[in-house]
Amino acid sequence: MKQTKTVLPWLSGLIFILVLSTASAGETVNDPLPAWNSGTTKQRIIDFVDGVTDSNSSTFVPVNKRIATFDNDGTLWSEKPTYFQLLFIIDRVKSMAADHPEWKTTQPFKAVLDNDMAALKAAGMHGLLELTMATHAGMTTEAFELIVKEWLATARHPTTGKAFTEMVYQPMLELLDYLRANDFKVFIVSGGGLEFMRPWTETVYGIPPDQVVGSSIETRYEVRNGKPVIVREPKIHFIDDKDTKPLAINRFIGQRPILAAGNSDGDFEMLEWTTSGDGARLGLIVHHTDAKREWAYDRESSEGRLDRGLDEADQKGWLLIDMAQDWKEIYPAVNDQ
Amino acid sequence: MKQTKTVLPWLSGLIFILVLSTASAGETVNDPLPAWNSGTTKQRIIDFVDGVTDSNSSTFVPVNKRIATFDNDGTLWSEKPTYFQLLFIIDRVKSMAADHPEWKTTQPFKAVLDNDMAALKAAGMHGLLELTMATHAGMTTEAFELIVKEWLATARHPTTGKAFTEMVYQPMLELLDYLRANDFKVFIVSGGGLEFMRPWTETVYGIPPDQVVGSSIETRYEVRNGKPVIVREPKIHFIDDKDTKPLAINRFIGQRPILAAGNSDGDFEMLEWTTSGDGARLGLIVHHTDAKREWAYDRESSEGRLDRGLDEADQKGWLLIDMAQDWKEIYPAVNDQ
Repeated sequence: MKQTKTVLPWLSGLIFILVLSTASAGETVNDPLPAWNSGTTKQRIIDFVDGVTDSNSSTFVPVNKRIATFDNDGTLWSEKPTYFQLLFIIDRVKSMAADHPEWKTTQPFKAVLDNDMAALKAAGMHGLLELTMATHAGMTTEAFELIVKEWLATARHPTTGKAFTEMVYQPMLELLDYLRANDFKVFIVSGGGLEFMRPWTETVYGIPPDQVVGSSIETRYEVRNGKPVIVREPKIHFIDDKDTKPLAINRFIGQRPILAAGNSDGDFEMLEWTTSGDGARLGLIVHHTDAKREWAYDRESSEGRLDRGLDEADQKGWLLIDMAQDWKEIYPAVNDQ
Repeated sequence: MKQTKTVLPWLSGLIFILVLSTASAGETVNDPLPAWNSGTTKQRIIDFVDGVTDSNSSTFVPVNKRIATFDNDGTLWSEKPTYFQLLFIIDRVKSMAADHPEWKTTQPFKAVLDNDMAALKAAGMHGLLELTMATHAGMTTEAFELIVKEWLATARHPTTGKAFTEMVYQPMLELLDYLRANDFKVFIVSGGGLEFMRPWTETVYGIPPDQVVGSSIETRYEVRNGKPVIVREPKIHFIDDKDTKPLAINRFIGQRPILAAGNSDGDFEMLEWTTSGDGARLGLIVHHTDAKREWAYDRESSEGRLDRGLDEADQKGWLLIDMAQDWKEIYPAVNDQ
């Protein structure tokens, strides 16, 4: 009896410490999205996550079905004045032009060399992919990875002067973390090139290479002097956009997401596919409304054109994220040293 | 002082319990592969895993690079008298034949209806995939998933009488678990159909749908009465075999595995690609040597033909798993009730 009594103060001290640390963990959980302003948008996201993770809720979803897919351009990072991958391509075309005199008179290369953005935009997504083929093929996958990494380390955005990987959205980084903390498996499903994204998505978004789905070119396996390589070929394998996004989700992920986020009509079918499944579903559209801190565009934009999605979001139950209204910050604070 | 003294017995009791439970956990770790006989094969696998997970080892590999890929047919489950997917197809062809009178005179369908296994085998992997297209297309992905699940629940192997999902290799199930316990991310990379495997790989192998890579057919997105579906089309999209396995690994997984396991020359390039990377690598070949408990075959077999791999395994440093010698058990014990 005596021993029990003397042990008790020690035990209650321990319990006090345990309770304290639980409480402070609890406070963090209470504001999982600090860069989001309070309001219905933030609340609906939190309510959705609470509902699918509460095993007593009628909307509970088991961990292995908690799949979330995110578009990249305009959803996780900016896409103005044009897609960042196109800015990468422009730099590549210019640095390779000496070896390709025919590019001076052939579109869409001519447009790049002439800095003719209008002609470039007119070439559209397929023009972009043609440029991708021409500038990104012929080398091994390992050589291409190095080219992408070097460009990202040195290139700067034409108007903000930031590194491109600093132009990711802080509120979306928090959303990715919040979902993962609630046992979601988070994927990128983007029209961008698979191997343009994979060298940096793990560091920047915490999304590993095998959880990145995108457009791709053909490749071939070759053994060079006993050493195998994978060579990138100038031929489109798959374009991941609009109605092919659900097909890519089916092929790469193999189950229907319960949450999908996009910003353009290129994401319409991904959101439609996601939110028409049974049970709790969430479709998110980042609406670019912030001309001051980022860019404001929707129906008339050549990048991230959002027209049908804007018309039908309400009827489909999709949540429009009003960037100007809902986001306290746009980009992560940069540690200038 | 008095309090410290009286607390001590209580504390040392606690420590004793902690030490005990650590020790018993330690014993489990000491035999992570109980269905494997002691010997060099088992030891080399354990040494490899110890080396890549020990942060003080020169062969340490960070968690996010611990990628392992496994072939399925003949590597994780049996493939005799023929590929289980082909047995599924045979059942499908027979049940659909009334609607396809032309099949009576057209190969490879005729072979199936005539139970002519020789003619069927002569059609090879491409014949198998042609049959897959014809019998597996035209329905939605969700309908196909149900067909696969129903077949697996009712069909039985022609000679063992077991359910097909009971004919997975117990030693390989342990290896999958052992790798995952050491923070490997484990993928299937198989010539089999993506959507034939995904309905059951999570339950049977603990491998979720997005970690299954395989052959696939074309699909299309369609909205039927406001409800979107993905329809399977009778056209090959990608065959995942031989030199296309590294390409599929690159496209789906996006980084080179450090461990790959196969059983046939269809896995040669996957093992070559895996083991020619820098640092510690392990290539495993399941050699079917056990005519008594499973099947014995290699160079002359139409399923799982292993010829070049057998010649070059030694020179490449790949580890041949001698099924008769190295495996204590073949299939998991079934709970007959």
